[in-house]
Amino acid sequence: MAKKLTPQSQDFSAWYNEIVYKADLADLSPVRGSMVIRPYGFALWENIQKNLDQMFKDTGHENLYFPLLIPMSFFEREAKHVEGFAPELAVVTHAGGKELEEPLVIRPTSETIIGEMYSKWIMSYRDLPLLYNQWANVMRWEMRTRPFLRTTEFLWQEGHTAHETAEEAEAETIQMVNIYTKFARDYAAIPVVTGEKTVGERFAGAKMTLTIEAMMRDSKALQAGTSHYMGTNFAEAFDISFNDKENKQAFVHTTSWGLSTRFIGAIIMGHGDDKGLIMPPRLAPVQVVIVPIFRKNDAEAKEAVMTKANGIANELKAQSIRVKVDTRQGMSPGFKFNDWEQKGVPIRLELGPKDLENSTVVLADRLNEAKETVALDRVVGIMADRLEQFHHKLLKRATDFRDEHSIEVDNYEDFKASIEGNWLLVNHCGSEDCENQIQKDTKATPRCIPLEGIKSDGNCVHCGEKSAYERKIIFAKAY
Amino acid sequence: MAKKLTPQSQDFSAWYNEIVYKADLADLSPVRGSMVIRPYGFALWENIQKNLDQMFKDTGHENLYFPLLIPMSFFEREAKHVEGFAPELAVVTHAGGKELEEPLVIRPTSETIIGEMYSKWIMSYRDLPLLYNQWANVMRWEMRTRPFLRTTEFLWQEGHTAHETAEEAEAETIQMVNIYTKFARDYAAIPVVTGEKTVGERFAGAKMTLTIEAMMRDSKALQAGTSHYMGTNFAEAFDISFNDKENKQAFVHTTSWGLSTRFIGAIIMGHGDDKGLIMPPRLAPVQVVIVPIFRKNDAEAKEAVMTKANGIANELKAQSIRVKVDTRQGMSPGFKFNDWEQKGVPIRLELGPKDLENSTVVLADRLNEAKETVALDRVVGIMADRLEQFHHKLLKRATDFRDEHSIEVDNYEDFKASIEGNWLLVNHCGSEDCENQIQKDTKATPRCIPLEGIKSDGNCVHCGEKSAYERKIIFAKAY
Repeated sequence: MAKKLTPQSQDFSAWYNEIVYKADLADLSPVRGSMVIRPYGFALWENIQKNLDQMFKDTGHENLYFPLLIPMSFFEREAKHVEGFAPELAVVTHAGGKELEEPLVIRPTSETIIGEMYSKWIMSYRDLPLLYNQWANVMRWEMRTRPFLRTTEFLWQEGHTAHETAEEAEAETIQMVNIYTKFARDYAAIPVVTGEKTVGERFAGAKMTLTIEAMMRDSKALQAGTSHYMGTNFAEAFDISFNDKENKQAFVHTTSWGLSTRFIGAIIMGHGDDKGLIMPPRLAPVQVVIVPIFRKNDAEAKEAVMTKANGIANELKAQSIRVKVDTRQGMSPGFKFNDWEQKGVPIRLELGPKDLENSTVVLADRLNEAKETVALDRVVGIMADRLEQFHHKLLKRATDFRDEHSIEVDNYEDFKASIEGNWLLVNHCGSEDCENQIQKDTKATPRCIPLEGIKSDGNCVHCGEKSAYERKIIFAKAY
Repeated sequence: MAKKLTPQSQDFSAWYNEIVYKADLADLSPVRGSMVIRPYGFALWENIQKNLDQMFKDTGHENLYFPLLIPMSFFEREAKHVEGFAPELAVVTHAGGKELEEPLVIRPTSETIIGEMYSKWIMSYRDLPLLYNQWANVMRWEMRTRPFLRTTEFLWQEGHTAHETAEEAEAETIQMVNIYTKFARDYAAIPVVTGEKTVGERFAGAKMTLTIEAMMRDSKALQAGTSHYMGTNFAEAFDISFNDKENKQAFVHTTSWGLSTRFIGAIIMGHGDDKGLIMPPRLAPVQVVIVPIFRKNDAEAKEAVMTKANGIANELKAQSIRVKVDTRQGMSPGFKFNDWEQKGVPIRLELGPKDLENSTVVLADRLNEAKETVALDRVVGIMADRLEQFHHKLLKRATDFRDEHSIEVDNYEDFKASIEGNWLLVNHCGSEDCENQIQKDTKATPRCIPLEGIKSDGNCVHCGEKSAYERKIIFAKAY
């Protein structure tokens, strides 16, 4: 049998790197910092896409597609934006055998080229709001990369909307972070904390950045999706103005919001254990796997077992359950059990000649230690409910873990003593210098000012100045 | 009202460029040769994707994702491949603020990087076949570009499979071109001709290229999808070898197959008329549009009409019919009728107070001149069938047009006299020199050797040598 995974408690980072490759989610590619997303990982992304896309469409958004390459000069029009992205750009200087007159940049995000187009498309208040989204690849030349968490190229969706008023644009920004929150909880079984970023952590060019923060099994935070209100910053830089209801020219208010393949990292590290992945059933590429068991030379047993296994699979498929019969040859049942456990399939059925004799099947639940014996004539009927239960158990497990590792502290000694392995809820003065000092001491950063949570207006946990916020904010180490 | 489209008969090319922008399919972008695909165009692409993707999955293919950037040196490993693509490459020379040690190329197609990965993944015959596909953007720096037909960046799917034997790989190549054929006919209502490319027209590095060729309304041909058998060319270049059933090392046989946003060009030019687009119903972003009619100041009539219009829309939606109620303000009904005709929506319902009084609705079919009056209590019930009929009418219209403009000729005088406005079925000697001479004289190229069709072994229409093929082959002017 293959070498076991490094236990999470021993080296979480090693566990992560091993499981990504062993569970066939991704592979290293020959190009520095980029990865190949393998079919098992890509099927997970497809399920993320399908469900999120429906939520976007249900709230009136339409998809479209903007070019990959953006003229370098576009970035220079919004000062903070270029400052934020310039160091990470990949630049096309030659094409079609010639040097280009102006270098073109592979999009790290598309606000600039979208701004340019919106300035053409928006003339009057009748053209508003524009509620658009694109699914695309983007590139940020990061120095340190890790599969899914931080790769030079990644896949994402970027929504870009334009509105008549600040109020409407802010409401959109909040609506979209709420969609991410609901998606994370209801599909990925991840109980994210939703909040606003402090000024120092905002997106380059934004007036407000909302985020969903997920707790990983090592208690670190992972920013899993963000929604930004840009004010009129991009509208002014790209001259996106319109004739308003009073027949005056005004700038539109824009938003952007994105969720990327990084979210796969949140699923891996938010649920996985020492045996490997645990897939949330509503997104799992395979929800139920059936492992048929028979002796290699017993053709009669093989036929009986395979017939029954395929029969169960077809009945489950008819219920839209994603099921796979593991017909691989040359592998023992034990190897297969281990393999599917590692891949995090929620429910496994084991079916051999003895089971057929007894009209039963063995059911292994990825969240339970003990296996169960279930009557063959009941197994199909209970499956949809079992997958629902699995979702709720997984969500509860993650919620309990998050709550156990979220601690209020009110002095810096306790802060430093508790920051390893916890999220800390604290009062903070709001100063960037103070944030930086905390980061220097402890590596912790402000994750967000929760939209809901403990109201408080005490003094800063670090410097003792008055709290800048109405609520305690979260500091944590983060990916 | 907006300026009318240039008639197809006057200037087909002008008609095409106008309709792309007027029907909101795409817009010019600030980057040379690339376009923005607008929501109406992108919704068409999403419907193409959804249906093709299901056909790929039904035949056992899985999706995955390879990196956008490919090391320049990879291209040099397959001689014909680099020769074919080198002039069109876009090259990243700088990233993260530094010059790269080796330039990276934006993929024009992914055989090379996929070959590199397959050589890692394939060890034994047990790993075969690999049946993978990716949906991606690619870039070819073309000199002359036109929206959808030829853009520097385009969206496509590229399937890449690896097999134990030549027979299996050839069967896959044929299976996939048959899927394209079926998709074109059954979804896009385009009666393509399926055939093999002559040697001179093969994909760079292929041993066999199969193609679907579609006839546009100006009788030119458009290559709308291709499927290639690579032999062991790429396997040898990238060392994709495996331990076969006899325990010997052998090279795999690979295929690749692709269909791109160019297919949208085939839909536009294969069906459109002087009024604009005609959307095939099974792919149409909007299958039925309802235009409510009322006087601006008659609030009572407005409410009654809107209530009924929304009621019909909801009943149609419940049947999974893609319906839109046109609630735009400040536009006359006549403007809206014209707009939806231009956008090619198959069926339009016009509903005003007079119709409500009579319990009827006016139905306009994009393929019929006359409007019909339909009883309100029947309109929902007939709609699915009407859309089906529309598909078959559209397919028949395109098939009749193709057949009327496909002519057998057996001498070069007739060839030259008939090539304008027709596809010519001819015997050909198979020599590339002879093909080139015909192209020089007439601008026509060999489109394909049809897989089915007129058996013949006469003499070459141009040079009089013996036919190289069992069948007459098609010459035509092409996009």
